[in-house]
Amino acid sequence: MKRIEPKVLKGFRDILPQDEYKRRVLIRKLEEQFALFSYLPIDTPALEYTEILLGKGGGETDKQIFRFQDQGGRDVALRFDLTVPFARFMAQHGNNIALPFKRYHIGKAWRGEKPQRGRFREFYQCDCDIVGVDSASADIEILTVMYESLRAIGITNYTIHFSHRGLFNQFLEGFGSKETQEAILRSVDKMRKVGEEKTRTELIELAGKDGAEKIISWITPGATFVDTIKNLENLTGGPSEESERLTEVYNAIEAMGYGKSFVLDPSITRGLDYYTGIVFETFLNDLPSIGSIYSGGRYNNLASLYTKQELPGVGCSIGLDRTLAALEVLQKDTSKEVRKEVLVLMPENYDLLSSAHGAAKELRKAGISAEVYHRNKKYGVQFKYAEERNIPYALIISDENSYTLKEIASRESYDLSSTKEVVAKIEGRI
Amino acid sequence: MKRIEPKVLKGFRDILPQDEYKRRVLIRKLEEQFALFSYLPIDTPALEYTEILLGKGGGETDKQIFRFQDQGGRDVALRFDLTVPFARFMAQHGNNIALPFKRYHIGKAWRGEKPQRGRFREFYQCDCDIVGVDSASADIEILTVMYESLRAIGITNYTIHFSHRGLFNQFLEGFGSKETQEAILRSVDKMRKVGEEKTRTELIELAGKDGAEKIISWITPGATFVDTIKNLENLTGGPSEESERLTEVYNAIEAMGYGKSFVLDPSITRGLDYYTGIVFETFLNDLPSIGSIYSGGRYNNLASLYTKQELPGVGCSIGLDRTLAALEVLQKDTSKEVRKEVLVLMPENYDLLSSAHGAAKELRKAGISAEVYHRNKKYGVQFKYAEERNIPYALIISDENSYTLKEIASRESYDLSSTKEVVAKIEGRI
Repeated sequence: MKRIEPKVLKGFRDILPQDEYKRRVLIRKLEEQFALFSYLPIDTPALEYTEILLGKGGGETDKQIFRFQDQGGRDVALRFDLTVPFARFMAQHGNNIALPFKRYHIGKAWRGEKPQRGRFREFYQCDCDIVGVDSASADIEILTVMYESLRAIGITNYTIHFSHRGLFNQFLEGFGSKETQEAILRSVDKMRKVGEEKTRTELIELAGKDGAEKIISWITPGATFVDTIKNLENLTGGPSEESERLTEVYNAIEAMGYGKSFVLDPSITRGLDYYTGIVFETFLNDLPSIGSIYSGGRYNNLASLYTKQELPGVGCSIGLDRTLAALEVLQKDTSKEVRKEVLVLMPENYDLLSSAHGAAKELRKAGISAEVYHRNKKYGVQFKYAEERNIPYALIISDENSYTLKEIASRESYDLSSTKEVVAKIEGRI
Repeated sequence: MKRIEPKVLKGFRDILPQDEYKRRVLIRKLEEQFALFSYLPIDTPALEYTEILLGKGGGETDKQIFRFQDQGGRDVALRFDLTVPFARFMAQHGNNIALPFKRYHIGKAWRGEKPQRGRFREFYQCDCDIVGVDSASADIEILTVMYESLRAIGITNYTIHFSHRGLFNQFLEGFGSKETQEAILRSVDKMRKVGEEKTRTELIELAGKDGAEKIISWITPGATFVDTIKNLENLTGGPSEESERLTEVYNAIEAMGYGKSFVLDPSITRGLDYYTGIVFETFLNDLPSIGSIYSGGRYNNLASLYTKQELPGVGCSIGLDRTLAALEVLQKDTSKEVRKEVLVLMPENYDLLSSAHGAAKELRKAGISAEVYHRNKKYGVQFKYAEERNIPYALIISDENSYTLKEIASRESYDLSSTKEVVAKIEGRI
């Protein structure tokens, strides 16, 4: 018989159990935090009208999306992020949704970009937004969500760099044409990648020597929040609504005890994105090279392509794959955690088969993972199975009232007379 | 400005927060059970080579799949279930996977079938399998997984109907050609839908009057397991490996105290599927009309299309949408559950903004969901917000040491002097 070669598409991948388990634990912890902040989940289709996804189009995205005609001749495509579908969602359900609306969305998106190390054509996104309110309080909440959810997933040493895109736009207005302003923004945005020297050269070309110095002064943080904000205010002709918003937000963050993890960093611009207010990126102090793992900002109009309803909002997005990679590097020893898991051996006396399954049932009732070894094999073979899979305990059943619990690592054995005692032993109560 | 009409494709849908929340809770409870049984999650790409998905093809599926050429000219399609990708996965990673392999997979699949009530072109599947072992013990485990996971999600009154497809195949061998046998199987398979009378007429046409009576006798359960299995053994010339396997499995299920929820029902065939051993479907005693919500069976060769490695296994699949619909009907009052959730009002004195966020932080630390009202509005407006969203508590902060907790439903107020006291009050400790 002719067989089909089992393979996945270029840029796609299977996720094996150990990695998928880690991802699901990560997602569950994030969801627990979102719930504590009263964010609720939504879902949208993977497939949408291409017109909806591309909007006015014209960007890089057009070339990258998976687009085709469906059976009904419709021009459809796989979503390439969760933001565009969310905008469409808000426009479509606007009448049935009370504002402000707090939602999170975790799901896959697809882009046909050139596969490279760590970049795949299918990836998870995780977005969290408050829509329908423009206030310092909402900005503070999003920053708090980020702070708390990072701690919840076990990342503790990070800095959230924030700034105000509207304030930067104001500042840029002093620099010639729209095109020049955009070029300056792009140049600043990639400084972290290309280095300060190269950026300075670019800026001199774009804004002259004095202009470049002014821009460098803008993007260089001072020693304290107050120093930095004063400088920004000086460079934009004094305090403004925008600089006051930043101060309000920072003061609350500081008062809540989060201050040390936040820095006002005017080099944060979020590129040419649609942000208009506060913007932020998160860097790991022990692994800065991995780039921002959690970022976002405030926008003044989420869904203008689809509705005339004005929807200001603020949102953040965590890079799940990047975060998993960071956790891998930062916490090398999570596998050493002692799991509560038991392999119930297939009894030598096969008449005890139901007792083996019954014992597994009792263990699970107590919250202990348990599996029965499903074949009649020598105990030696069964122990090896437990060892290879890092199952910490094996349980031998000799008769209804006689259990031997074996700790695989230490090879210690304990004779016990009931499944209750087995549970107590594993929980360290006897 | 010309706007794009916000809409989703025919047969697709957005999931709004309340429904998505329920689905995610359901999934989380299932995952907890799978973990207690030591099953681990995997993931596979949504998009695969069409050749892989369709195999030899020729069925209804061919017309239903979302298929297209990608940017590289490859013939690709969205997966239409999780079974085919799992077979490909096992063939591809066979050398790196220790057997038996226990995995679950929860993910979306897509079929372009005609949309109808309750059927969508995008849907979730949830499969759980043990591959690489053919034993009564593995069969028992899968039945136990089903039993326990249904209870875990709050469904208690159900019957798992099981039978043995290999035994039925043996019995069918007495009925003429392969085509006739298949026609009989199809006829029996849809009896639950079309009724016994229509089936009897069909069977007479296919197998004659005596033949039909024999088949009806086969598919009619006796009063007890023993009565039924004796009848099956009589009709297949005495006990066989297959009938003994059924007995072994049932005895263990009975010994574990699960007996009342299981019935040997030889009318269960699972259609023309690839099953070869035990097969099962699950019906809700209070809602039989919804059909089977949890089903599966044993197969002797999962991935023969892609590898020569023989991979016997047994698996079950729960219909998430159908189960959610059933939960909706069966448990009308889950919304009455008192949530621990607080709306922290925006203080009249705006200088207390950080205290409001600080109080929310303390509540969350205690596991209580909390959100701050993000605008400067009268308390009346803010209370209304809590009321409309069924948030049970509102918290007013008058100064650093003065909190008023208001129970929205009863309109009772409690004056408290710290966030600690607020937590204690909500938890009923003071």
